Amino acid sequence: MSKRAVSPLHMIDLIRKKRDGGALDPREIGFIVAATAGESIPLEQLSAWLMAAWLNGLTIEETGALAVAMRDSGEKFDPSRLGKQAVDKHSTGGVGDKTSFLVAPLAAACGVAVPMISGRALGHTGGTLDKLDSIPGFRSALTLAEFEAVLQQCGAAIVSQTPTLVPADRVLYALRDRTGTVESPGLICASILSKKLAAGLNALVLDVKTGSGAFLRERADEEFLAALMVVTAEAAGTRTVALMTDMGEPLGRTAGNWIEVAECVELLRGEMPADNADLRELSLRLAGWMIHLGGRTQTAEQGYWAAAGALADGTALKLFFEMVKAQGGDLTVFDDLKGSHKPGATLVLKAWRSGYVAAMDTTELGWAVQRLGAGREKAGEPVDAHAGIEFHARRGARVEEGQPFATLYATNEAMLSEPVDRIKRAITFSDEPPEEIPLVSHIFARENAEKYLRETTSSS
Amino acid sequence: MSKRAVSPLHMIDLIRKKRDGGALDPREIGFIVAATAGESIPLEQLSAWLMAAWLNGLTIEETGALAVAMRDSGEKFDPSRLGKQAVDKHSTGGVGDKTSFLVAPLAAACGVAVPMISGRALGHTGGTLDKLDSIPGFRSALTLAEFEAVLQQCGAAIVSQTPTLVPADRVLYALRDRTGTVESPGLICASILSKKLAAGLNALVLDVKTGSGAFLRERADEEFLAALMVVTAEAAGTRTVALMTDMGEPLGRTAGNWIEVAECVELLRGEMPADNADLRELSLRLAGWMIHLGGRTQTAEQGYWAAAGALADGTALKLFFEMVKAQGGDLTVFDDLKGSHKPGATLVLKAWRSGYVAAMDTTELGWAVQRLGAGREKAGEPVDAHAGIEFHARRGARVEEGQPFATLYATNEAMLSEPVDRIKRAITFSDEPPEEIPLVSHIFARENAEKYLRETTSSS
Repeated sequence: MSKRAVSPLHMIDLIRKKRDGGALDPREIGFIVAATAGESIPLEQLSAWLMAAWLNGLTIEETGALAVAMRDSGEKFDPSRLGKQAVDKHSTGGVGDKTSFLVAPLAAACGVAVPMISGRALGHTGGTLDKLDSIPGFRSALTLAEFEAVLQQCGAAIVSQTPTLVPADRVLYALRDRTGTVESPGLICASILSKKLAAGLNALVLDVKTGSGAFLRERADEEFLAALMVVTAEAAGTRTVALMTDMGEPLGRTAGNWIEVAECVELLRGEMPADNADLRELSLRLAGWMIHLGGRTQTAEQGYWAAAGALADGTALKLFFEMVKAQGGDLTVFDDLKGSHKPGATLVLKAWRSGYVAAMDTTELGWAVQRLGAGREKAGEPVDAHAGIEFHARRGARVEEGQPFATLYATNEAMLSEPVDRIKRAITFSDEPPEEIPLVSHIFARENAEKYLRETTSSS
Repeated sequence: MSKRAVSPLHMIDLIRKKRDGGALDPREIGFIVAATAGESIPLEQLSAWLMAAWLNGLTIEETGALAVAMRDSGEKFDPSRLGKQAVDKHSTGGVGDKTSFLVAPLAAACGVAVPMISGRALGHTGGTLDKLDSIPGFRSALTLAEFEAVLQQCGAAIVSQTPTLVPADRVLYALRDRTGTVESPGLICASILSKKLAAGLNALVLDVKTGSGAFLRERADEEFLAALMVVTAEAAGTRTVALMTDMGEPLGRTAGNWIEVAECVELLRGEMPADNADLRELSLRLAGWMIHLGGRTQTAEQGYWAAAGALADGTALKLFFEMVKAQGGDLTVFDDLKGSHKPGATLVLKAWRSGYVAAMDTTELGWAVQRLGAGREKAGEPVDAHAGIEFHARRGARVEEGQPFATLYATNEAMLSEPVDRIKRAITFSDEPPEEIPLVSHIFARENAEKYLRETTSSS
């Protein structure tokens, strides 16, 4: 006979509220997420809400509530038994972005645990798991118990999302893809962080790409997303920084699947051509922050030098091999980096004019890599381990007509011509050397991220 | 081997285009409507598009293309064999709005054909078909052939939408209801007009309600909708006017099901209490325009007087009875208007204070009528024929505390108390008589409607 304290929620009211520019409270957000995971909201209602959220935006509080509710929508990983701080790195995605294979062993070698849950290639960006699949026997689909066992043994593990982790994100992610509601800062932030928070991370280092290969094309949008992720993750209890890093050219010398893994192993072995100094530097910067936020050094710079030490003395390489082996990988594949995955067709693309490489449309280059067979157009399609591009000239280099510019690897000759056209379209030459672009242009930590959001949202 | 002239359309691209503020061309709108009728677009994509259209709006051209494509999505009625101009009236919905029972026989008696396709009660407004259901034997679900036969015989028929007419609207209407995308001028206009255009009308008179009982609450929104409907219907080849009419109080003396039919029969019989002068006047005005647009008189005023003649000499009453009989209705129900549908419970609500009736919240009164059993909360629920309210005092009247204010009819006593509370909440008394509100405040025809839209859309 007592009066009900809380009135029941109806999805139609929450759609209207968002449509009319209102902000949903955590209980309302929680209702949507729980019903999404439980599949009790019709998809048409969910997609109307997503479009309203896309067009009217989510507040910082809504984004935080969404990330936390999604985190709580399924099973979670508890890293506390590892006896170390759990720290991960997440990148918004790029071309030739292979830092995961470096930062995981570097940070783990310096005493933090790296429980890394990664994804597959889609669109113009490559996928960490697709690259790892080029190692025979390697298993990324581990159970949470297996994940923990590898982490206990090696300090790092790279796995795919389990079916039970953040089920609400799987529904929302697929729906956003079909309904034109992907590119929303709030929805992107909540989707990324929900998975990181479900991994129980103590700290997180975000690598937010800028420039021609970035997921979002406007610098202001990338900064907003970076600041939003830092503030949201910090509010959920995870120490977080975001590095704004250059994706105005592919990272390192290679973009593809096996060739990216091979490039990392070369680097871990100490074979360091000048062409991948950017990859080495960014990996050390990211690992440095992971080590620092994981409490192993007083500053990120000290973390950088600790990581550099683990690279120089071979402990990172050893740890990488241990991790690959613990996840079922056959290490003999690394005996002959060049010979392990022979492509059916190879083409050396020669420079089609002389000049400085002034600019690269990295998104276009990413599509060239995917069309060579390294990526997929639809989720679930297979990819070719041997496919990819090796760049012999980087941005800022002086090239002479006829000198090797890039080498393309594919299954057959027919797959080469479209990527060649794309590469030619993507490159701009100039007579003068272009201005240098800093590798890391800005770092957001909690305080300056909060300030940035305050200023951005108050002026809009 | 020839190059394809037209590229295939993809729903995801049309969602993004609308989301980003673009306007779809007729081919794109046609693709969406055809795929909706054919159920080949997933509902989640359709609802994302609807929300984008709701928030970004549809242009006048998009609205016209949508109305025409929806008209063409199924079977159509061809009134050309009737040998008369086909003219209908459509109201945006009100409380006590029973003009259909009057304008159909009045206009038909003056020589135009009235193929009227009506709806059922939902929300706070009553439904013409629910009211007609109180006539034993009356069938509104006619086939198009039966519809035509009644029209040939009587000149008027009032039927429900057939399953084959405008199938795209049925899908969209149900989806809009579930996804919070109902109240959009473009979507409303296209939905209403698609059904009217599919009936093959030569002319159409729109009754757009204003004031406290209107579907849209802002006068500017109602005007925009009225002008948009006139311009869109005219562009599709149907001569159209829209009368902006007052819904600041229920229309006539009654609101419910059988009691509204009975009030109309009294009026057709020439028994005219002062309390429904507004109903008589509006019906003659609407019928006058129907007769004029149907080419039977030179002006709408001449149409008005022709209708008044058909009312005075009993031909409209005779025609109404013929139509009811042709649709299976048992005319003996009209022998005893008071005795035909005895309610289980009757309550005379006495005025709870003295004063002038200054204002009525007609939406609230509409809900009171529905809660007495005259309406439904969900589509498909049954309604009570005897349920409703008879008002003994209208807006502007002077009442003394204790005098009968309204009589409520319901199935049992328990159903009376909530409606009584609602009526009390809905009425505002004053010590001075309120200002009179004109019954018809504005009329839109093609020219001033076009001008209105030009001015409204250019200033926004």
